[in-house]
Order: sequence, then C-alpha cells, then structure tokens
Amino acid sequence: MKIRVGIYGGSGYGGAELLRILLAHPHVEILLVTANEHAGKAVGEVHRNLYGLTEMCFTAAPAADEESERVAELDCLFLALPHGQALDVAPRVPAHVKVIDLSGDFRLGDAAEFLEHYGREQTSPELQREFVYGLTETHREQIREARLISNPGCFATATLLGLAPLVAAGQLSGRVIVDAKTGSSGSGAKAAANTHHPQRMNSFYAYKPFTHQHVPEIEQELRRVGDWTNELIFMTHSLPVARGIFASIYVETKDALTAEGARELFAEFYRDSFFVRLVEGSPDINWVKTTNFCDLGFAARGRQLVIFSALDNLVKGAAGQAVQNMNVMCGLDEKTGLMLVGTNP
Amino acid sequence: MKIRVGIYGGSGYGGAELLRILLAHPHVEILLVTANEHAGKAVGEVHRNLYGLTEMCFTAAPAADEESERVAELDCLFLALPHGQALDVAPRVPAHVKVIDLSGDFRLGDAAEFLEHYGREQTSPELQREFVYGLTETHREQIREARLISNPGCFATATLLGLAPLVAAGQLSGRVIVDAKTGSSGSGAKAAANTHHPQRMNSFYAYKPFTHQHVPEIEQELRRVGDWTNELIFMTHSLPVARGIFASIYVETKDALTAEGARELFAEFYRDSFFVRLVEGSPDINWVKTTNFCDLGFAARGRQLVIFSALDNLVKGAAGQAVQNMNVMCGLDEKTGLMLVGTNP
Amino acid sequence: MKIRVGIYGGSGYGGAELLRILLAHPHVEILLVTANEHAGKAVGEVHRNLYGLTEMCFTAAPAADEESERVAELDCLFLALPHGQALDVAPRVPAHVKVIDLSGDFRLGDAAEFLEHYGREQTSPELQREFVYGLTETHREQIREARLISNPGCFATATLLGLAPLVAAGQLSGRVIVDAKTGSSGSGAKAAANTHHPQRMNSFYAYKPFTHQHVPEIEQELRRVGDWTNELIFMTHSLPVARGIFASIYVETKDALTAEGARELFAEFYRDSFFVRLVEGSPDINWVKTTNFCDLGFAARGRQLVIFSALDNLVKGAAGQAVQNMNVMCGLDEKTGLMLVGTNP
Amino acid sequence: MKIRVGIYGGSGYGGAELLRILLAHPHVEILLVTANEHAGKAVGEVHRNLYGLTEMCFTAAPAADEESERVAELDCLFLALPHGQALDVAPRVPAHVKVIDLSGDFRLGDAAEFLEHYGREQTSPELQREFVYGLTETHREQIREARLISNPGCFATATLLGLAPLVAAGQLSGRVIVDAKTGSSGSGAKAAANTHHPQRMNSFYAYKPFTHQHVPEIEQELRRVGDWTNELIFMTHSLPVARGIFASIYVETKDALTAEGARELFAEFYRDSFFVRLVEGSPDINWVKTTNFCDLGFAARGRQLVIFSALDNLVKGAAGQAVQNMNVMCGLDEKTGLMLVGTNP
Repeated sequence: MKIRVGIYGGSGYGGAELLRILLAHPHVEILLVTANEHAGKAVGEVHRNLYGLTEMCFTAAPAADEESERVAELDCLFLALPHGQALDVAPRVPAHVKVIDLSGDFRLGDAAEFLEHYGREQTSPELQREFVYGLTETHREQIREARLISNPGCFATATLLGLAPLVAAGQLSGRVIVDAKTGSSGSGAKAAANTHHPQRMNSFYAYKPFTHQHVPEIEQELRRVGDWTNELIFMTHSLPVARGIFASIYVETKDALTAEGARELFAEFYRDSFFVRLVEGSPDINWVKTTNFCDLGFAARGRQLVIFSALDNLVKGAAGQAVQNMNVMCGLDEKTGLMLVGTNP
Repeated sequence: MKIRVGIYGGSGYGGAELLRILLAHPHVEILLVTANEHAGKAVGEVHRNLYGLTEMCFTAAPAADEESERVAELDCLFLALPHGQALDVAPRVPAHVKVIDLSGDFRLGDAAEFLEHYGREQTSPELQREFVYGLTETHREQIREARLISNPGCFATATLLGLAPLVAAGQLSGRVIVDAKTGSSGSGAKAAANTHHPQRMNSFYAYKPFTHQHVPEIEQELRRVGDWTNELIFMTHSLPVARGIFASIYVETKDALTAEGARELFAEFYRDSFFVRLVEGSPDINWVKTTNFCDLGFAARGRQLVIFSALDNLVKGAAGQAVQNMNVMCGLDEKTGLMLVGTNP
Repeated sequence: MKIRVGIYGGSGYGGAELLRILLAHPHVEILLVTANEHAGKAVGEVHRNLYGLTEMCFTAAPAADEESERVAELDCLFLALPHGQALDVAPRVPAHVKVIDLSGDFRLGDAAEFLEHYGREQTSPELQREFVYGLTETHREQIREARLISNPGCFATATLLGLAPLVAAGQLSGRVIVDAKTGSSGSGAKAAANTHHPQRMNSFYAYKPFTHQHVPEIEQELRRVGDWTNELIFMTHSLPVARGIFASIYVETKDALTAEGARELFAEFYRDSFFVRLVEGSPDINWVKTTNFCDLGFAARGRQLVIFSALDNLVKGAAGQAVQNMNVMCGLDEKTGLMLVGTNP
Repeated sequence: MKIRVGIYGGSGYGGAELLRILLAHPHVEILLVTANEHAGKAVGEVHRNLYGLTEMCFTAAPAADEESERVAELDCLFLALPHGQALDVAPRVPAHVKVIDLSGDFRLGDAAEFLEHYGREQTSPELQREFVYGLTETHREQIREARLISNPGCFATATLLGLAPLVAAGQLSGRVIVDAKTGSSGSGAKAAANTHHPQRMNSFYAYKPFTHQHVPEIEQELRRVGDWTNELIFMTHSLPVARGIFASIYVETKDALTAEGARELFAEFYRDSFFVRLVEGSPDINWVKTTNFCDLGFAARGRQLVIFSALDNLVKGAAGQAVQNMNVMCGLDEKTGLMLVGTNP
C-alpha cells in the first residue's frame, strides 16, 4: 500500500526536492504535481536532474470546483507554494487528507506577529491552531497524531536544533546571538538581483538585521521547549554557495560546560534522532549538502558556549524534513526514503 | 586639457567598467553619465565599488530637444546601451563629437546579416559605413583618424586576436573551430535564469550553437585582414566565473608550425601591441581578469595548431578596449589610464 | 546472497564514491577497505559525508603473506589505487575473485603506448590481455563474461560515448576535435598547486595539449567499435567546479545530419543503455553531477556535427561505472544501486 | 626622489600584492625582491598577473655577510616572510632603513602571549618595544615618527576598525562577540587540505575557536585605544571565496544607539581616514575586493549594536596597509599608490 501524495507548487526548489525524494520513496506514489507556469510540461524538462526518471507532467492547480475531487484521492498533500497561498488552499482540503505546508503561513500562533513578519492577515486562525510545528526532533509525538503540519523554516531548523537541548535543560543565561549564513538557493528558484551570479559568487553580506521572519517561530518554539526568556539577536548573511545553512550560536550557560559536556547533553536529548549528527570540532556545510542531516559541533570556554549548526536548507531545512514528518504521520520509520547520502567532494 | 566625455548607459557592466577606468584616467573629465532607471542616484550608490571615489550622479538620457546641447559640450561620447538604442542616438550626435559605441549596432556592413543576427533593420546604413571597427591591434591607423568607432564584441576580440596573424600570413587551410567560453558577466547586469547563482555556480553548457551574433563580425574582419575563405565553426559555452573569456581555436596551417614558430609569427604581428601578451603554455583567465590584456598561448602538432586566447570580457572585450580606442583617437599613448594591474590571486 | 566486495584505496575520491554507492547497494557487503595513511580510522571520520552511515574502519593494505587469504573471501575487488599500484596487486588476486581496476594500469594493449603515457613498463602483458575495457555501453556482453575489468578514464568515457555511434555507423570523415573540460576533483583528493582554491576558483586554462593519457585508450576503443582512422585532436581544460566533465566534440560526417538525425542514430545505438540520456540542446554538468548519467546533445550545420557530452567524472567517469560493471558481471540489473538522483540546484 | 624599497618574501600572496602595488607606486623604486625557491626566475613568471609589467627577477635572500650591504641601499624594507623569520632578519637591518613587517613576529608586547600563540620565544624583546603597531587609522601620529612597523593581522584590522571608536568612546558594556569569516587566500599561496578546491568551493566551517593568534593583538590594541576590560569571544570561519574578510561584531552599548547614531560616532572618529567607508546597510566583500578600503555598516536595536566590517585580507589586511604605513612614514599622502579601484562585478 503506497501513500498517495500530491504536491502543490512543484516548480520551485522546495518542489524540486520533494520530487527528488518522493519519486524514490519506496512507499509513496505521486498522483499530482502542480506548477501553473509549467502546466503540461514534463517534470524532467523543468527539473532536468529528473529527466529519464519520471514520465510525470505538471498540471495547473485544479480549479476550485474540481479541486476537492482531485485532492480527495490523496492521503497527503504537500504545499510548496509561495508564502500566502496556503492560507487559501489549506481550508479547502478534505478532512481525511493530511497536509504538510512548507511555507510560513501557519507557523505562527500570534496573529500580530504573523501580520508584522509576513504582511498579511491570518485568515484561518482556528485552522492555524490545529497545525503542529514540524520540527520532527522536538515534536515527534504530536506529529504522529497530527493531520496538519507546518514545516519549519530553514534558519529556524538550524537554530532550534542548536538551542533546544540547552533551553530544555534550563542552561541559558543572558542574550543569545545567532550568526546565520545561507546559500543562494534559500532565495528560491526565481532569478533576482541578490542571486545574480556575477555579484553573488564573490559576495558575503548581512541582510534583514534583527527582523528575519524566522525569528518569531524560533522564539515561539523555544518557549514550548523550556523556559525561554532570553534576548535573541538573530542575524542572517548570504553565502556564495548554492546550498547550506551554517549557524554560529553564541550562548552563556549557567554552568560552565566543556565542548564534551555539551556534546553529552545533546547526545542524550537527540538519542532517538538519527538525522542529528554530533561532530568533533566544527561541522561543514560540505558534509550535509543534499542530505537530511543537521550536523552540530561545539566550542566552549568557561561559561561561553558556541554551537555550530549546519544543514542543507532545501532538505532538512525544507523538503527532507517534510518527508520525515510524513513518515512519522504515516507510521513509517522516519528515515524511510531519506537515506540521502552526501558526497565527497 | 582634459578630454570631456559622456557615457550613455552607465548602469550596466560596460558602463560600470567605463566609469572605473575613466574616473582614474589622467586626461579625462566625465561630464555626463546616464542611467534612466537610476536617474538622480549617486554613481557610488549603484556601483558600490566606486563609493567614496566620485560625487557624480546618474542623469536621465537628455530629452531630444536638449540632447544636442548637452552632447555638444563633449569631446567623446561612449554608448554603452542595450543593442538597438545606438541606432537612434548616433545619428543625432553633433559632428565634432567622437562616438564609441560598445553595442553591435554599427559593427556589420551587411544589412542582411545585421537583420538576421540582431533582429532589426540597419536604419542608418550610410552612417554605419563611417564607423571604424575598433579592434585596436588591427585597425590602429584607421582609428587614429576616425570619428565613429564600433567597439568589437567580447568573443570577437578574443577570436580575432587569435586568428588575425595567421590569416594575414595566409597560413590557414580548411575549417577553423572556435570553442569559446564566457563568464556570467557576459550576460549583463540584469538577473536572468541563466545567471541565477544556484544554477550557474555548478554549470557548464553550450549555447547558441553556430549562430552567435559575433560570428558575422569575426568573418567580416578576417576578410579585411587577409584572404579568409575558410569555414568557421563557432561555439559558445557558459563558464561559472564572473569574468573572462577563453577561446580554444583549432586550425590547420599550410606549413607545419611549432608552438615556438607560431609565437614568433604572432610576436612580429603584435610587436607594437602592448596589450597582447604571448605566454608560455596556456593562458588563464585568472591572469587577465580586471585588465586590458589579451593573453595568447599555443600548442602544435604537425600542421595542427591550437591557439588559446584569454581576456576579460568587460575590459579588453568591452570598456577597456573602448578607452584604448579613445586614447588612439585623441592622440594619447594607447596605454594611458589602462595600466590596470591584475591580481594574484 | 550479497556480493562480498573489497576496496583497495578507499581514501581518494574514487574510493569515496565507491563507498558512497556500495554502502547503499542492496546486494553488496563490503568486507574490506584499505587506506594506508588512514589505517585504523573510521571511514566516517575521513569521508565525513558518511559519518553516521557506517561503522567500518580503514585497514592497511594486507601484507603480501596474508593478502591472498583476505582477498580470497571476496567476490569482487575494486582497485582505486594511484596509477602503477594495480600492476603489482592484480597478479596476486586469486582466480575466483573478480577485479575492477579504476586506474590506467591495464587499459592499454600496446606496451609502448603505456610506457609513453604512464612512464612505466607493462609488467604483466599477459594478464593485461585478459582485462576487458569497462565502457559498459559498448562492451556489455564481454563484461558479462569477464573476470578482470579495466575501468575507463573519465575523459575517455565522455568522449567514447559521444563518438562510438558515429564510428560504428562509419559516418566520420576527417579530423575529430575534442575540446574537453574537467572539474577539480579530476586531480584527486590530494591538495596541489593546480587545485589551490584561491587560484582555481577564477581559473580556466588548457593543459597537457595533445598528450593526455586518455588519448590512446580512446583511439584503441574507437578502432574496436568501427573503422577509425581519423586524426584525433584532444585538448583538456580545467574548470572551476568540483565535479563534472564536459566535452565538445567537433566532427565532419559523411552525410549531412541534422541534430535530430544524430539523435535518432544515437537513440538506436543506446536503446538498451539507461545511463545515456539524449537531451534537447546542450547538456549541462549541473544536471549530471553526483549521478551515473552521461547526457548527450547535438548541434549540426550541413556536414558539421557537434556532440556535447556531460558526465560526473567521479561517477560515470569512475566509481559509478565500476559498480555498473560489477552489476553486469554478477548478473544483476546494471542499474542496481545506481539510481543516484541528481539535484536541482 | 624615489623611495628605494626591498621586499623579503616576494612569492607569497603578501609579496604578490606588495609587488602589484609598489610597481605602480609613483614614488617607489623596488631594488630587491627575494624568494628563495624562485631565485633567478622572473617576477612575471611566478605572478603571471605581472607578466609584461616588470623585468625584475627574484633573488635568493642575501647571505648574512652581504646582506647589510644590500639592505643598506634601501630606504624601506618590507618583510613578507613566514611567521618566525622576521625575528632573525629585523635585528640585522641597518638603523637608517625603515622596516615594515607583515608577520606576527613583533606585534605582541607580552612575550608569554607570543609564545602561546606563535609557539616561539620573542628573541628580541627590546627591538619589539620599538615597533609601532601599524593600524594606520589609530596610530597615524606614531607611525609618522616610527622606523619599525608591525603590520596588523587581517582579522585584527577588520575587528579593530569596527571596535576602536566604541572603545574610545567608552560605550561598550559586557562581552563582545566577533563572528569573523575569511576567504581562502588567508591561508597563503601554498596548497593545503583546507584550500583544496573540490572541498573548499562548497564549504563553510569554523576553525581555531577562541584561540586565533590575532586575539591577543586585538586586545592589546583595544587597551591602548580606551578602557577595554570586556570579554572577547572571537570565532573564525572559512568562506568559499578567494579574497575578503567579513566580521559581524556584536556589542552591547552603554547608551542605546541607532544605526545612524553609531554611524555618526564612527564618522567623527574616522574623519581623516579615507580608507574607512561608512556604508548604508551591510557592507559586502564584493565591494572591497582588491582595494585598500574597509567598509563598515551598522544595525541596532536598543542597546544591541552590530557592526559589520568588510575588507580585502591581502590589501587593507596586509600589503595595502603596509604601503599606507610606508606613505605615512615617508611623509607622503597616505593614499599615494593606493587608489586601487574595485570592480563591479
């Protein structure tokens, strides 16, 4: 018995990665993949990495009157749409269909914060409350029972995996500084000035200081994990690589911790979490690219602790974690279809 | 006495490089630089490399009624506009003002070829005949007397400098194959799908097979240099670097030439050409980037000769050569303001 | 029943890719992986992409006296050693063990050519004659029966796949020019001047003109495929990417062929070859990276035909093809364990 | 009257950049440039960017007995040697010759810290005390009178320029976190595992946590600038670009400062410092590459202030600043020969 899935928004990088993973997933059958601007085109013509691996074609998003029928055949619908569109789609999905939304539309419980960071009203506040935040490692039990998943942002995943064990242990004192860096695919598949190759290939710069839209979801989740009342200073930077997020997280711990001590605390917290790897020294985005791993490393001096967190923004930071959540929701081993082995080099 | 220059089209990469070079040119004063979409903005705000180095602001292109007045103050007007716009502007320039056009609008003497490759009519065929093709190394004497210069294309410059001595010597037999590769800045300053960083940084591919618009200007000029009747197979490829063109030129010579022999023939041809460097082994775009040099190297086996040609598409392939031509037209040493030293690394 | 394999030389990039592929291969068990300089270290410590995916450790190469015993347990031994070392190892392998050698040691039937290109004597000429050249697409039937496989060079694979159908069809006339470009991993895992990042990232240059060691194996195999008497001009260049080979192959055909006609000829020749994909327009190394595909595209004008060939030098150009050959030798579907899906971006 | 200079250590990247700048410096004549491994070779053969621009050849370092004679002819000697060698050379330089040392050998006044961070004894403690720390912007008056200059480290320059105005103003409270990132040329011109292109081009990772050798010189200088008693958390990371340092500096100010307020404070501090540019938003290494500029930008929220500092590690972080110091020592405008204009792109 295969899980029958659909993908709304198959032409972006999130959709591309969902297709890469789900086409090879042993328990999945893809019934539907939409991409309005490519409707009718072969998937392998748009995502040329998939040429020869599938005969599927993109369709237009179903019109409202036929949508419920098309979607009703599905067990699980992935929404990989631009921010704002899931607000419209999700309320129309029949109640027996699971939904995993990769956008920010349903992540925030606070409507004011949502308005501030996404520039639109939360039009389905009740539905939003039914969504479970899909950071698998910290919400696994809730995800098992959930029908609606709001998949975390890429920066949020890297940051939360680096902070959750310390917040849960009540170890943080004072402000927390997150110096985060992302590859260019984080800006999506559409060409733009900040991803213009002649500029980007020799660039490194900061953007959206203090105001990145992942900040409220990070704080919301840290408050669920433990007693988070710290000040968060969150700074995003642009890296000249295609894939990868690296976060350097600077904290002051209540007790002096060695790097080894931190590692033990994390190892205990993540003992059931295959996709969190605790490494010696620093992780490197090179070792997690194209995989669902988040690699964490540590450096310490007295009560100063630095956590280094590295992941692939499109996999553990998006499509991979979405499939991990689908696996958990459907009673599969969460690793199913996600043993995406990285490469050297 | 300074040369009073204007630049039409200062916001693209050609304009950016003209500004970089002309702002530091000891005998130039820039009176005017246009950029419609940035009119009123400081040059150093758009080209942030120039921040702190000039107080100039972009202006809109002068309206037709005031244009002649503005342009009449100039000694030399550089046109760094999108293809097609110089066709409109050039006929309006007063006769005492020199014009150097970096576009393809006036390069081709054959109106049919122009229509085929540029998709528009040559509306000023008589004016076109007054333009001198600005490959300084082969047209220096004509440029000295010229008022109107059509600056060569980047691929054309790399190819012509690699072929001219052999055509002049009557040494070529059979078809000539040019396998040319360009960096992403060759596509201009506007973001586009083929220069989207996540794609481009790991890409190498061919484009416009046989049909690149620089082909007719290459053949036109080779016929001027010597007895060119060979078949030209010209293939363009995209490199994942910001700057640089590298052409591998495969020819069969009438006499067997060693690499050293070829070098001697080229050394004689370019004995007065400072900006052509003949190197041992292969040139490398790394050694010409940001400079006005074209580096040439050779490999030979029997009558098979390969010429390797490397230059910076924005400098010797565009703005640098344009200034070199201005120097020649104005009676200056052609190196003036062009001792742009490359860097290691 | 699993195939019991060993790998000699597990620390280089060929070894890294063999491990990546074979660890996930459903019918393989790795018994042995050597790396003298890393003996005792965990595989996942050296190839940090594999951290968490295997508990294996590297061993030193067995001493001569215990080697036969260790190797006798294997069904298949991969040799991913520096050039020259397989010459010593292969003769000692027990006769029931299959050998797949990724080096150039046994590729050339002509001892003089071997000496010229590899700088050493062929010390086992009789054993050499037993080796089958492992270009799966052209030697599939022989490989099925073979015990000893000499795996093709990366440039040779890209070139042969682009030329074999034309040579088999007797379509080539005149000289053939191959302008080939490789990523930096082609130079191996050891740091060297030509792969020093500050230089390489902005470089493009030619090297080993006419004399690359893959030339004789290309010509040897073309003579097996058809009536090859043409002159081959083979030029290698260095690309600033980690992975990928792109060859632009310029030929003159006896009959005028359109791109579509060429495509049909190739489609027929490769009708049973899943890993050769015929694409519209140009292939791109971006779409084959990390996969076992070789993508081929075509451009034509009259009797001038250009074939573009793109593959991953470490996969179809090395470890992937080696596993493809193992599959064929062991009676498995040749795709087993090789459905390595590329990524976008 | 030209300044007669010599360079010890001309083959590394520091030497390469000294040569690039000094060859074009209007008041400098280079009498001597050493490079033991390249003795006798043309400078333009080793630094191929300089091919055609100089006839100079490298020499071996003079033997002890002839050294004083060779060096006595100089006005100024640049030492661009590996760490440790200036300790031997500097004491032998005649007293009328100015010395600018680009290594760390004479930067630290505390012999214990020197031993800890550089692994060797300070063998000339008295001479060390005569050295002036060459951060031009904060030591300009002392440099004017100095004979011996210890040129700052690249990370130290980026960090000190970002912190000095705040320390001088007594504005810092609490710990200071510096998240610094460097391009690969920071590792020098010799190939090594961490600069191997296939690895580095997709990498980002942290190294030397808390312990980078530039930390003590930063703290030493901050104590000179003001009342520095804060805790410094300094973290270095590797960027996949050739050139550039970017430091994100996180501080808590005693008074709440807006970004604009910080900018004004810095503008006042650097009012005579042409090479410090205060930018809107974030600086970008793309805009300072190959130049002597350090670009600073600001973001603020309440008492949390972030200073972004970007420079070229080989220019303002090494050779450019060294020449700036030479200019000041010799009574020239500090900009002489340093109007190195960056490029777009």
